[in-house]
Amino acid sequence: MEPPRALLFDVFGTCVDWRSSVARELRALGGRLGLGAVDWPALADAWRGLYQPQMDTVRRGERPWVNLDVLHREALDRVLDDAGLQAVPEAERAELTFAWHRLDPWPDTVEGLARLGRRFLVAPCSNGHIALLVNLSRWAGLRWDAVLGAEIAHAYKPQPAVYLAAVEALGLEPGQVTMVAAHGGDLAAAAGCGLRTAFVPRPAEHGPGGTADPPEQPVDLVADDLLHLARLLGA
Amino acid sequence: MEPPRALLFDVFGTCVDWRSSVARELRALGGRLGLGAVDWPALADAWRGLYQPQMDTVRRGERPWVNLDVLHREALDRVLDDAGLQAVPEAERAELTFAWHRLDPWPDTVEGLARLGRRFLVAPCSNGHIALLVNLSRWAGLRWDAVLGAEIAHAYKPQPAVYLAAVEALGLEPGQVTMVAAHGGDLAAAAGCGLRTAFVPRPAEHGPGGTADPPEQPVDLVADDLLHLARLLGA
Repeated sequence: MEPPRALLFDVFGTCVDWRSSVARELRALGGRLGLGAVDWPALADAWRGLYQPQMDTVRRGERPWVNLDVLHREALDRVLDDAGLQAVPEAERAELTFAWHRLDPWPDTVEGLARLGRRFLVAPCSNGHIALLVNLSRWAGLRWDAVLGAEIAHAYKPQPAVYLAAVEALGLEPGQVTMVAAHGGDLAAAAGCGLRTAFVPRPAEHGPGGTADPPEQPVDLVADDLLHLARLLGA
Repeated sequence: MEPPRALLFDVFGTCVDWRSSVARELRALGGRLGLGAVDWPALADAWRGLYQPQMDTVRRGERPWVNLDVLHREALDRVLDDAGLQAVPEAERAELTFAWHRLDPWPDTVEGLARLGRRFLVAPCSNGHIALLVNLSRWAGLRWDAVLGAEIAHAYKPQPAVYLAAVEALGLEPGQVTMVAAHGGDLAAAAGCGLRTAFVPRPAEHGPGGTADPPEQPVDLVADDLLHLARLLGA
């Protein structure tokens, strides 16, 4: 079988550890405002917990496509209300929304992606918008050939338009492209569009002692991390 | 004055020497097919000469937006006809269209862009589509934070939508972004959208002994090349 020409990457959870990073920013906020004892990782989880339901409102066509800065800010206001943290001022909320532009990579991500990028075209195929991914990639040290994903399709994964727009933007056919993700649903949707698939488990995504989100269907590759994926692909 | 947050670059002519590169590919074709004495740089000029008139058909709304592979191929067929080279077979024409994905950088481009990219967000704002720019950037060694330009706007410079879509994709305001180009018309259009402007003359774009295409309006910066621009911007 011919090697792929390009690799598309899920980012939140697959390339970066959103939970620790967002909890860190929430904790710093708590320190600045003297908010006392709050379970910051749980607050990060609650914030992320609104992510899929919010994107569903776009997926169902109930609202026009808006980017994750808009969705993250709406969700933050709800989560702070629910946690009794109504006192957090507007300027802090605005800044905190950009916590999602400053997510740390997993330990293998930077070197793994750099190796893969020497051999293959690499691009994110994320629900994050271009500005978020540009800032996050600078922060985390991720280098891409292009920034693809939800914004160029004006849709949200797992809607097929997102994968197909990314493949088309690279001038390739779906079978020439491998989707790399830590989430079974993402890989199933990519496979449904004709892409190849590589599963990289990230059991720590939701915290220590967690479990991976494995694919329910066969995938083309399973790798322990991005360095392992690079070895499997000869990169 | 605050420094810019991002630099947007014209690519054809400003970052890469399309004329020499395309002439080289045409000359190689001539060798393969035994076409004899042809003025290959003049053929490259004729090919490029159809570029603006073709994009005009899109700009005027006479056809839906199509990418440069489509426009370059249409133009190639006309240019070969006009040159009496009807014998060039289909497979060669298809491959030759991708000559525009393999353009060499000017001598200062790779290092200049790398330096600028360490300090500022950098992205192409080119009439080239994403796949063309991804391939060209690999070929030439150009590294970007994102690939912006005509494709995400479905318009062609100097239409304002192209500059504005690029600025918006970076999550910035026009005044935070500098357009870098070798062409006065490109800079005038960017300035009309509120962007800052940097002129980099490329007098050799149309061949030895040529002259630059200077701006008719004042620009914010004039640099001899991208290394000089990096020095002017403290990068």
